Amino acid sequence: MLKIALLGAGRIGQVHARSIASHLDCRLAAIADVASEAAQKLAAQYGTQVATVDSIVDDRSIDALLIATSTDTHADLIERATACGKAVLCEKPVDLSLERALQCQATVAQTRKPVMIGFNRRFDAQFSALKAVFDKGEIGRAELLSITSFDPAPPPLSYLGGSGGLFRDMMIHDFDMACWIMGGAPATISATGSALVDPEVASIGDVDTAVATLTWRDGRIAVIKNSRRAGYGYDQRVELLGSAGLLSAKNVLENTLEKITDAGTLTAKPMYFFLERYMRAYEAEWAAFVEALKAGTRMPVTLTDGVAALACAEAATRAARTGERVAITSDMLGT
Amino acid sequence: MLKIALLGAGRIGQVHARSIASHLDCRLAAIADVASEAAQKLAAQYGTQVATVDSIVDDRSIDALLIATSTDTHADLIERATACGKAVLCEKPVDLSLERALQCQATVAQTRKPVMIGFNRRFDAQFSALKAVFDKGEIGRAELLSITSFDPAPPPLSYLGGSGGLFRDMMIHDFDMACWIMGGAPATISATGSALVDPEVASIGDVDTAVATLTWRDGRIAVIKNSRRAGYGYDQRVELLGSAGLLSAKNVLENTLEKITDAGTLTAKPMYFFLERYMRAYEAEWAAFVEALKAGTRMPVTLTDGVAALACAEAATRAARTGERVAITSDMLGT
Amino acid sequence: MLKIALLGAGRIGQVHARSIASHLDCRLAAIADVASEAAQKLAAQYGTQVATVDSIVDDRSIDALLIATSTDTHADLIERATACGKAVLCEKPVDLSLERALQCQATVAQTRKPVMIGFNRRFDAQFSALKAVFDKGEIGRAELLSITSFDPAPPPLSYLGGSGGLFRDMMIHDFDMACWIMGGAPATISATGSALVDPEVASIGDVDTAVATLTWRDGRIAVIKNSRRAGYGYDQRVELLGSAGLLSAKNVLENTLEKITDAGTLTAKPMYFFLERYMRAYEAEWAAFVEALKAGTRMPVTLTDGVAALACAEAATRAARTGERVAITSDMLGT
Amino acid sequence: MLKIALLGAGRIGQVHARSIASHLDCRLAAIADVASEAAQKLAAQYGTQVATVDSIVDDRSIDALLIATSTDTHADLIERATACGKAVLCEKPVDLSLERALQCQATVAQTRKPVMIGFNRRFDAQFSALKAVFDKGEIGRAELLSITSFDPAPPPLSYLGGSGGLFRDMMIHDFDMACWIMGGAPATISATGSALVDPEVASIGDVDTAVATLTWRDGRIAVIKNSRRAGYGYDQRVELLGSAGLLSAKNVLENTLEKITDAGTLTAKPMYFFLERYMRAYEAEWAAFVEALKAGTRMPVTLTDGVAALACAEAATRAARTGERVAITSDMLGT
Repeated sequence: MLKIALLGAGRIGQVHARSIASHLDCRLAAIADVASEAAQKLAAQYGTQVATVDSIVDDRSIDALLIATSTDTHADLIERATACGKAVLCEKPVDLSLERALQCQATVAQTRKPVMIGFNRRFDAQFSALKAVFDKGEIGRAELLSITSFDPAPPPLSYLGGSGGLFRDMMIHDFDMACWIMGGAPATISATGSALVDPEVASIGDVDTAVATLTWRDGRIAVIKNSRRAGYGYDQRVELLGSAGLLSAKNVLENTLEKITDAGTLTAKPMYFFLERYMRAYEAEWAAFVEALKAGTRMPVTLTDGVAALACAEAATRAARTGERVAITSDMLGT
Repeated sequence: MLKIALLGAGRIGQVHARSIASHLDCRLAAIADVASEAAQKLAAQYGTQVATVDSIVDDRSIDALLIATSTDTHADLIERATACGKAVLCEKPVDLSLERALQCQATVAQTRKPVMIGFNRRFDAQFSALKAVFDKGEIGRAELLSITSFDPAPPPLSYLGGSGGLFRDMMIHDFDMACWIMGGAPATISATGSALVDPEVASIGDVDTAVATLTWRDGRIAVIKNSRRAGYGYDQRVELLGSAGLLSAKNVLENTLEKITDAGTLTAKPMYFFLERYMRAYEAEWAAFVEALKAGTRMPVTLTDGVAALACAEAATRAARTGERVAITSDMLGT
Repeated sequence: MLKIALLGAGRIGQVHARSIASHLDCRLAAIADVASEAAQKLAAQYGTQVATVDSIVDDRSIDALLIATSTDTHADLIERATACGKAVLCEKPVDLSLERALQCQATVAQTRKPVMIGFNRRFDAQFSALKAVFDKGEIGRAELLSITSFDPAPPPLSYLGGSGGLFRDMMIHDFDMACWIMGGAPATISATGSALVDPEVASIGDVDTAVATLTWRDGRIAVIKNSRRAGYGYDQRVELLGSAGLLSAKNVLENTLEKITDAGTLTAKPMYFFLERYMRAYEAEWAAFVEALKAGTRMPVTLTDGVAALACAEAATRAARTGERVAITSDMLGT
Repeated sequence: MLKIALLGAGRIGQVHARSIASHLDCRLAAIADVASEAAQKLAAQYGTQVATVDSIVDDRSIDALLIATSTDTHADLIERATACGKAVLCEKPVDLSLERALQCQATVAQTRKPVMIGFNRRFDAQFSALKAVFDKGEIGRAELLSITSFDPAPPPLSYLGGSGGLFRDMMIHDFDMACWIMGGAPATISATGSALVDPEVASIGDVDTAVATLTWRDGRIAVIKNSRRAGYGYDQRVELLGSAGLLSAKNVLENTLEKITDAGTLTAKPMYFFLERYMRAYEAEWAAFVEALKAGTRMPVTLTDGVAALACAEAATRAARTGERVAITSDMLGT
């Protein structure tokens, strides 16, 4: 039975608390949050205790930490926890600064402690099926990957200001998907973006609608499309053209009801947002972390994966600004 | 906080244990099972105690019972529990004998205690959406209802021998769906059945493939199709033609991946069986029971509904044997 | 080059005229219709001549006749044409009277001339694909067949009066589909019907919503559902459960556009009626007739098939009235 | 009745011959082809005569020409025909050289004769429905357009050598779709391409897999994906994200049959290639030309549209080579 501590009792922390508590091999031993009320409430629901980060890190009986605090604390907490011998599952991104993430990667490497970055989409049933079928060779070699990722509604401008911009905050998930499916980071990135949903977004130097094109050294191509506002829900699709066919992971709809009337055929919308769509992915993510931890095998998403996604985001930000193709160099990947 | 006791720790009892334990307003206070080991194991998992049926029924602090024992004990347990002032959610069917079910219905009526019968499909997201859209009048008046219900694989002959036959054991779910959607029991039933999956089934006087046609006094018609073996999974569909359109609740597939190759377009199968397909329906069923109990409102599925489905099953069994249209009379419905 | 005469220049005659004229091996040599204006106009469009039935039948250069006149003339015209040595493709049904159709069957048998009955649905791309895949054994043995056949809107009462009733006029297509797919006529038929779309229909002894259940001697079952008014278009589906899978021929939609908004996902309706849905089937039907004629092989739909469908219709009409299962005897099939 | 001459009796000329001959308002008066046998055969099939280009151009009774000859003859023939007062429907592209196309555009402008360029996809039922629904405002303002266009199999290298390259030969269709849907030519184009299907393609300086990103002055974005080899058929999809929803024109499948077995759910592939998929679009294209000609209204696809698509192709070719965003200037559009 693994003893787990949860850092962060916000919206995503609550999702993880449920996964930890319902896992047969885990005990949720402590919860820490700067907002003590949130921590208190969550601890009560799952019959566990509130603790400080310091006491958690120092508690030798704690096996692993799930870090779901604000982004600016991630790198520090990962370094502290691994230094104290704990395994870590940390929410994405590692940091908004590629430099800081590379530093964290180097520091953790010396502890040899397992760290997993929470790119939850890899554990979605549709995307993991796509990856598995592709890896079995059922559509031959990869040629052209397309990722569509639209949020239902934009976050408030106040959030966007500190988000690092669309490529670091939102498209980072898609960069990870692309690196994961294609089996490594791309060689170049081109990008373009506009503030179409809300012109105010332009005034803070950000975009809300964007396209990035990635190429690999062997000529393979990926296209990523993002919008902050699809309106109809969370649009999450991946499509991979291979030398022998096409794989396409479609949206998950709210239900399967179909109504046919004189107005046409009406079916449901995609599930509204990430909590609905990826609830099961979060459970599977936690299970994969526990399984790797118990077996002593490589984490399914590593800190290096987290760095690669961030490197893509940094390159895309630059590419969108200049209109030029930007190279991803090995020093950007820490490899 | 409601104190709940669970009778039956088998496969379906385990499903219910999870729903009870994770409901914020409930505490799983005791589990009873003739197989004490199963009860013990389940109790340990949810941090509760094993008890006897006698002690549970006598325990005045227990608010409600979930009965998930074998069918032949249902009516007795419902009567005992309600006599002792407890609310009951009992798995379907009430009994294999319509006569015994009618007796139970009459006995319970005098206690005025709430009893809900576990027709879980009413709580499936697809079917409840169909019912809700129909009730809002979006396809006008009902005309022709079609229910497809195929199991992935037949149960062993040994099970079938004591099952009461396909119409009572399997189609009873569909009879309940039909009565629920159409707003009351049908006036007549015709039926036919064959042993096509396994000829041995005929030797014990049962069928494994069957069709029943129901008519209502105002001319509305329903068709129910059953097979014990679809092979590809659990095929659960409902389609309703109304005066202004068609509603169709489709299967839920394992995932949304699509593979297009020279061989065609391949997508997933329906979820394999009832535990996969209806896992969320069981949770919603329990939530609906608790909600009605707390609010003191009418149970969403009543003992009378359980009797109606059984009356249909009895009529269909007779209709299949004789080739004649059988009337459903009010004394068969206990109304 | 075959010389073809067309009898009947009405709506369906016009469809056939196009098929004949555009077939590379055929010449549309003459058109006859009691309404001479219609014949005149159609002849002008295709650069051919108007003629009387008498002159056509007597014209030794005419190889084949396409009979698209009113139902009451079919049997007579088939007999006259075959007696004069011509091949015939005649629109369904052979006659409204099973007795008359059996007589025609016997008469024609003596001429040994090829007669094809125009059950156009067998030539629809979806249904012929279903039949071909089933015949290749891809879903094992047939067990349960379901046919859904809804018209978009009911014909006028005046038409219904002389139609022979829903089972003879509308469901006859579905009886043919069932006999074709299952490889022979059923052993029994049960049926029920109601006047739900228009209560006036009951006053003339007919129904507008109906279900028939067919069984074969070996236990296989088929269910046919008909409605005169689907509202949203022509609903034409066939589904076959086999021992190793399910085949399902879906509707053909007007286009493939999908609109996703906050209101849900909207796609097109089924094609509105038989001219849209079956336009290509009519072409394929004519091509199949010509091919069989040229090769001297058995017609793909025979007069015996036409009699079988009519026998089913007659049995279903009786079954709906009595509530009893009606047997299809070999004398009803003329075999 | 319009008298039409067809120049070019090859594969696409044969498709147009059928459309012309079956149009009620047209007469196919003459066919010219450098391969006189092909012209002879086609003329025989439709009961018309073979002629030289010279005699056709000089024949004052000819109202319009359909030009379906090789690309290098298009501009000359358009200029000659319009100079002689004839209306023209010319297959795409106007020319492989933007300069020559601009010259042709200027020359024709002085004749004021109607010229339509054969971008057949605008007349496909799926895409024209998308355009119509968008124009009605049903998804608000356009934001992000995606076009997927994959051929089933690559043409021979010998063809590619003279094709002008993928952007001019294949993606030109998609550039026209983008300009048409977005209501004008883009301001910039970025592009990338690889030879993934066949490395030999790189040796002739071409690509077989490519992505282009287009932006409009107001920030709207379009992405176009091309592959010369999808294997499973002709993949032709368009998707438009608007401020109030998403429109998506899906592929047209060979039929609607679905087979569900233990291996999953199998449906048909997309129609194999452009003759299957766009057969009806070619008919509709011709009908639209005739309608505009008779009404004296603006052609639905103009020579200026043909120039715009070519300008995009030229810009994309340059962008792919340099990795830079290329501007589309007004002198490239001849406006």
